[in-house]
Amino acid sequence: MKEKKRIVILGGGFGGVYAAKYLEKALGRKDDFEIILINKENYFVFQPMLAEVISGALGILDPVNPIRHLLRKTQLHVREIEGIDIENRTVTVSPGFRPHAHKVPFDHLVLAMGNVTDFRGMRGLPEHAIPFKNLADALYLRNHVIRALEEAAIEQDDLELRKQLLTFVVAGGGFSGVEVVAELNDFVRGVARKYRGLDPSEIRVVLLHSQDRILPEVSEKLAVFAQKILQKRGVELRLHTRLEAATGQEAILADGERIPTRTLVSTVPSSPHPLIETLDLPKGKNGRLIANSFLEVEGAPNIWALGDCAQVPAPDGGSSPPTAQHAIRQAKVLANNIVTSIRGGERQTFGFKGLGKMGSLGHRSAVADIFGINVSGILAWWMWRTIYLMKMPGWGRRLKVAASWTLDMFLPAELVELKLNRSMSLAQEHFEPGEEVFQQGDLGDRIYIIINGQAEAVREEEGCKTLLARIGPGEYFGEMALLRKTTRSATVRCTAPMDTLSLPRREFSLLTAYLPDLRKSLVEVMEKRTHDNQQRLKKAEGQ
Amino acid sequence: MKEKKRIVILGGGFGGVYAAKYLEKALGRKDDFEIILINKENYFVFQPMLAEVISGALGILDPVNPIRHLLRKTQLHVREIEGIDIENRTVTVSPGFRPHAHKVPFDHLVLAMGNVTDFRGMRGLPEHAIPFKNLADALYLRNHVIRALEEAAIEQDDLELRKQLLTFVVAGGGFSGVEVVAELNDFVRGVARKYRGLDPSEIRVVLLHSQDRILPEVSEKLAVFAQKILQKRGVELRLHTRLEAATGQEAILADGERIPTRTLVSTVPSSPHPLIETLDLPKGKNGRLIANSFLEVEGAPNIWALGDCAQVPAPDGGSSPPTAQHAIRQAKVLANNIVTSIRGGERQTFGFKGLGKMGSLGHRSAVADIFGINVSGILAWWMWRTIYLMKMPGWGRRLKVAASWTLDMFLPAELVELKLNRSMSLAQEHFEPGEEVFQQGDLGDRIYIIINGQAEAVREEEGCKTLLARIGPGEYFGEMALLRKTTRSATVRCTAPMDTLSLPRREFSLLTAYLPDLRKSLVEVMEKRTHDNQQRLKKAEGQ
Repeated sequence: MKEKKRIVILGGGFGGVYAAKYLEKALGRKDDFEIILINKENYFVFQPMLAEVISGALGILDPVNPIRHLLRKTQLHVREIEGIDIENRTVTVSPGFRPHAHKVPFDHLVLAMGNVTDFRGMRGLPEHAIPFKNLADALYLRNHVIRALEEAAIEQDDLELRKQLLTFVVAGGGFSGVEVVAELNDFVRGVARKYRGLDPSEIRVVLLHSQDRILPEVSEKLAVFAQKILQKRGVELRLHTRLEAATGQEAILADGERIPTRTLVSTVPSSPHPLIETLDLPKGKNGRLIANSFLEVEGAPNIWALGDCAQVPAPDGGSSPPTAQHAIRQAKVLANNIVTSIRGGERQTFGFKGLGKMGSLGHRSAVADIFGINVSGILAWWMWRTIYLMKMPGWGRRLKVAASWTLDMFLPAELVELKLNRSMSLAQEHFEPGEEVFQQGDLGDRIYIIINGQAEAVREEEGCKTLLARIGPGEYFGEMALLRKTTRSATVRCTAPMDTLSLPRREFSLLTAYLPDLRKSLVEVMEKRTHDNQQRLKKAEGQ
Repeated sequence: MKEKKRIVILGGGFGGVYAAKYLEKALGRKDDFEIILINKENYFVFQPMLAEVISGALGILDPVNPIRHLLRKTQLHVREIEGIDIENRTVTVSPGFRPHAHKVPFDHLVLAMGNVTDFRGMRGLPEHAIPFKNLADALYLRNHVIRALEEAAIEQDDLELRKQLLTFVVAGGGFSGVEVVAELNDFVRGVARKYRGLDPSEIRVVLLHSQDRILPEVSEKLAVFAQKILQKRGVELRLHTRLEAATGQEAILADGERIPTRTLVSTVPSSPHPLIETLDLPKGKNGRLIANSFLEVEGAPNIWALGDCAQVPAPDGGSSPPTAQHAIRQAKVLANNIVTSIRGGERQTFGFKGLGKMGSLGHRSAVADIFGINVSGILAWWMWRTIYLMKMPGWGRRLKVAASWTLDMFLPAELVELKLNRSMSLAQEHFEPGEEVFQQGDLGDRIYIIINGQAEAVREEEGCKTLLARIGPGEYFGEMALLRKTTRSATVRCTAPMDTLSLPRREFSLLTAYLPDLRKSLVEVMEKRTHDNQQRLKKAEGQ
């Protein structure tokens, strides 16, 4: 009896799930191989519909599908992938309830890990920009936007904060950015009238795009149509504009302009999963794995790659674009070729050219390029909905989506804010010169440690400002109000681009209570500062 | 012109929302008063349907309703209530995006804060028991249960862990506990067959109840019916059994028995909101505010109380039970009496006796006591659904619920695990004697600080066990594997009931990187320990 071969698939997007699906089909009633799929979520995300979660046109779980419902013969491991050892043919995954290492050996490995939003090296973006890639991102954005509206409705005095709360910025004018800005705009303008004390005219929704027109994926005619629709609905279009940096309160453009906002979404840039970087395999443009037209990684037998993390030759030269329709066709070829290498037979080559492109513009409008024919407006929207509904895997989910769309036509917009507790315990923040970390008199809610950059602490008394200290890397501030349980005794303002780490009051109290050494060293610094400050204030008074 | 009076309502449950609703009705087109409702969520939870979120019979947002959809003339402040100053007539709420104090003055105050799950003083429950009170609890439980199933499906070797993962314990056999256990049981048994490598017969669902029958709210006949249904469906009923303590791996009963489990839900006990405790107002049984039959707090003019945080005289003696139907009737009387005190007129008194009681038993069964008539089984279930659907405020939500129920009849159970990131950064845990915190050879993922209790560190080499250290309050352990990036060099086992605080690797690395003092003191302790351990091991070898 031949040994059972094990195929391990990494990633549960279009590439991974469809590869497993075609492998299951080929397996039939035989059992000469087994399939393991490793993914950090137990569901598959139907990306094209993700943006509709923002506006509530779809329910939260509508655009996702439990992988177990789609794949009956595959073993699903819901874990993070921590390491891939090509030489020894094992994958290491994160521990579960107990901290044990967990290794999965393989005979064939399918790399289908897609790409991730990659803000590395962009000032303030890792800390403050909201990516839009998976369900958690969509939910976070949705809840964040509702929270901003709730707060703006209460905040009647602080006009600066109100402006920040009511400005929503999206960077990137490709399909993804356009769909997000369209849904976001529909949603905030739609629900604003539910809020007493919110004037819809205060709302600003901005789309930043670096080129001279949005939607580089389609023809200029469609792009111009999309631009008109977005502008008509109140989206401010900023072409030739590049996002350079971000803070918690501002989007900073390449030309130095600062847009005050508390909601900055960025759909660019993306790069393959960080683990792909670590592999000793041939990589092409943007770090994607070079696969041949059999979908096998160049020079690596039984290592396969597809989808957004792979560079697959297109039939007419160049490489295959990172879309769902291509990933699905790649999956079919890949599955066939794995089965061939186990059972024998002829390998297939990938030669799909693409059927067309579609992008939703929100409320009953879309653009589509089907076999080279341009369609726009309500007809394109109807095509968008019909085609994607049919493409969605699983009839149960299709029914749910259809029900949600139907109810959405005549029900008021959903505005429940689900508090998801995105872990705020130890927060990293970025500040730009001139920004205040906190103001004298504020409640003392966190202690800050400066990773790099610089700030100054200034106290104002009877109209007279005294510079208390300049603080730099490795120093901390804000401990006084926490240790003494008072309000902030000074204003701290950033003077050179600064990254901080901060710990909220609760965590700070617990740590200092049970780590006496930490408390001791904090108290020492605080006492020295208090002493120095008094000297400085006396001096200032003397002058 | 008379000054506009301000009515501030604290809490957005049945009491608070219906009080605002009746006040809005009385306001009509006048504007002699304004209504502010303060609640930490922007939605109202329709409690009776909350348990259906567990099984996915209802969508995640179906049992909640945005308060803004229900109340058009009320100003909603979505904030935590931090202080109530009866004398100065102000309420302090938590800060929003900026750390400023926010005070809301009032003329009339309505206390409708309901009650909270209160595990204080119960060993290990605050750390490890899952409450079931609000939407976040329901979502957390649902996701936790799915995660346990996912992990059990992978875990084929560690049979002890597998047993813990597949045992689900609910404490408390009132309506709330029974509904939770029924939905939980239906769900896990329903989806288990989707998991390859899970045998439904391994699943254990246990209901703990301290008295001799469940459902003390209804007649014995109905309770016995409910018990039979639950048992038939596989729920293990443990009567005369009280939960005494909990750890991350066990539910500990009063008689000392330990049930291995990773999922312990407790629906008891509850007590009024902690802020009620701090108020200098008359309180009765269980700390509830004593209100008279006008719903005014005894001796406190213009301070009103209703719902679960109030003790309101019942027409036939005793006090009014904490149910939605009573809260709604109280709200009507209360609203009338506030309007009377502003505009003049005659006060009403509360005299509602209750219509009946209903409890769902999951899959097409329920018990109901309507005007003293007992109904059970599918008829009661049909009544339950019909009555609650009609009672649910807002026709939009009613439609959604009806749609979900319809789809649920023929769609497979939802098993998407939404990762909600319940902040795990700084975790508090409870251990009982004999339990291991970690084992030699485990991955080093956290550092622990002992708050109280005791543990021992034991190293095993070539079958020989050496006691390395006994550790107690204020000491920490587990730093070695983190600082040296190795696996655990010893097993740490609890020897006396122990509470710990622990910090995960990522937070630990960030803090020690930027707080050199902390790192220094940790390294010192570690070096001393390494030295001591070597001495001890040498001695052991010599023996």
